[in-house]
Amino acid sequence: MSVSPEPPFLHACRRLPTSHRPVWFMRQAGRYMPEYRAMRARHGFLDLCKNPDLAVEVTLQPVRALGVDAAILFSDILVPVEGMGVHVEFAPGPVISDPVRTRAQVEALRIPDPQASVPFVLETLRRLRGELAPETALIGFCGAPWTLANYLVEGGGAKEFTRMKRLLYEDPAAGEQLLQKLAATNAAYLAAQIAAGAQAVQIFDTWAGLLDPDDFARWALPYVQQMIAEVRRMTAAPIIYFARDAWGAADSLRSCGADVLSLDWRVPLDLARRTLGPDLAVQGNLDPATLFAPWPVLRERADRVLAAAGNAPGHIFNLGHGILPETPVDNVRRLVEHVHSWRP
Amino acid sequence: MSVSPEPPFLHACRRLPTSHRPVWFMRQAGRYMPEYRAMRARHGFLDLCKNPDLAVEVTLQPVRALGVDAAILFSDILVPVEGMGVHVEFAPGPVISDPVRTRAQVEALRIPDPQASVPFVLETLRRLRGELAPETALIGFCGAPWTLANYLVEGGGAKEFTRMKRLLYEDPAAGEQLLQKLAATNAAYLAAQIAAGAQAVQIFDTWAGLLDPDDFARWALPYVQQMIAEVRRMTAAPIIYFARDAWGAADSLRSCGADVLSLDWRVPLDLARRTLGPDLAVQGNLDPATLFAPWPVLRERADRVLAAAGNAPGHIFNLGHGILPETPVDNVRRLVEHVHSWRP
Repeated sequence: MSVSPEPPFLHACRRLPTSHRPVWFMRQAGRYMPEYRAMRARHGFLDLCKNPDLAVEVTLQPVRALGVDAAILFSDILVPVEGMGVHVEFAPGPVISDPVRTRAQVEALRIPDPQASVPFVLETLRRLRGELAPETALIGFCGAPWTLANYLVEGGGAKEFTRMKRLLYEDPAAGEQLLQKLAATNAAYLAAQIAAGAQAVQIFDTWAGLLDPDDFARWALPYVQQMIAEVRRMTAAPIIYFARDAWGAADSLRSCGADVLSLDWRVPLDLARRTLGPDLAVQGNLDPATLFAPWPVLRERADRVLAAAGNAPGHIFNLGHGILPETPVDNVRRLVEHVHSWRP
Repeated sequence: MSVSPEPPFLHACRRLPTSHRPVWFMRQAGRYMPEYRAMRARHGFLDLCKNPDLAVEVTLQPVRALGVDAAILFSDILVPVEGMGVHVEFAPGPVISDPVRTRAQVEALRIPDPQASVPFVLETLRRLRGELAPETALIGFCGAPWTLANYLVEGGGAKEFTRMKRLLYEDPAAGEQLLQKLAATNAAYLAAQIAAGAQAVQIFDTWAGLLDPDDFARWALPYVQQMIAEVRRMTAAPIIYFARDAWGAADSLRSCGADVLSLDWRVPLDLARRTLGPDLAVQGNLDPATLFAPWPVLRERADRVLAAAGNAPGHIFNLGHGILPETPVDNVRRLVEHVHSWRP
């Protein structure tokens, strides 16, 4: 009887040695892939998220096409807030027609049971675990409270996100209750994803860079710490935190409680590893635009990332942010091969 | 006979002690002020930039209303590229109908004589020096080559700025020639501004954060260094460099050659001063959104910035980015008074 080996991705999350450097990409399922565009031509974005047949297929497309070390659930960070009582549409960016701006609205938000609110996500993950080869990890994800709160209060994307800050300035109790409810909702959501088959989870804090380091320590960090602590109580699955554009808050990042910090391209990984110490793995951080470069340039930039990450275990190769829509698929595929064949 | 005292702002740029902490704001002339909105109701944005009567008036509005320590020329970083042969409109963001995307287009760009290409800017500065009290400094400015190149190649603003990087990946010589021509144009532009009366100049690198630290050292830094060296050859006027969202490239920032680094809110000023050393003054870095906060919150955030900047000379209070359009003027005025009355 043989035991299936743990995927190299999970080994790297735990800072254990791996036979090759694991790699996956944020937004690896998306518009740059012809298979994905073919699906989107027939189905709306939320249909892809909510129909397990479609979500499984879209999640698997980049695994088949690229040979990455992990699949990440196809969904959106706003999907679980629907169960809180917030209606979300995509046109194509998120639109919340009734933004959450008053204390009464915050108080009315529910903390849903994910089994009832997002059964399709859990079914998608269960099926994916049956489809994936044992060496390919399955990643679940959610948004961080700070980032989600900004969308809920603005009513979608914005040129300048100021409304959530203004709520916190003017009615801190209401703003903090919103963050609290988002933390509770998403902690339960991550726990349910892990119970359904996700082997690791990533928390996306896309708008962390809106905060100065003190406000990050006040409005982002505690809610992420709380989520991580709640998930930890039920599982040892690795937790990745992606606080985009927040390297100035490195002291906070060090204490977030995650196993892995995902970093954008603005910070050199050698500095990051020195600053974060030996207890955190790192993920990242190639500039997504380099995937448009001719191969020698792309290879040179990838080698810089690999070299900066160093030879100690605990690096997962990724981009500093999501794959851009018009990225040439061949470059992505070639990059995966290169990272896999790279040896220190 | 008495000699007029040098404005405190200039003293701080040179890291000399001042009787109070000098303060001004990026975009201090703008839509948040009723006086400005009244002007814009009658004149187009470029008319305000190109008519010295109007530009002088708009530049002086915040000095009168707020009591800041410096006036900054009212203009736009794209104004001097018109003389290079690039047609720019504002609708309201910049629109370049014929983006610069080929080597032939780059080669066709001229390096204009500012006396011929932007006489209205120089006339505006000459008049402003006559209008301003001796304790109020006059700041000129330009865009950094990297940031300007991105606008020229994209044809204006963009959700993702990738075209300039792609030009540099695919035809480095053409991309570098564009950066080179922008550096030469803007060095001459700054020198002319100083000759016309600007007592300090700021170089805005709004899109520095698009670059990882290695690419920053390759595509942003050398051209800024070259500009600074050229301006230095003719004047000792302080030079401020604002590399937004580029703290990960701190090693490069330290060697840019400027007198003052302007920093966004993402980096704590105490860390910045420790990292940058005693030879650079710092400017910044209050989160612009805090100007929407009730006074006790705004004061607490301002005090944090003042305390983090420390007591050594060489701090100019400012925001981490421009004033936001709907900012309450009373908060800005009160903040100026508070900064002026603050003592370590």
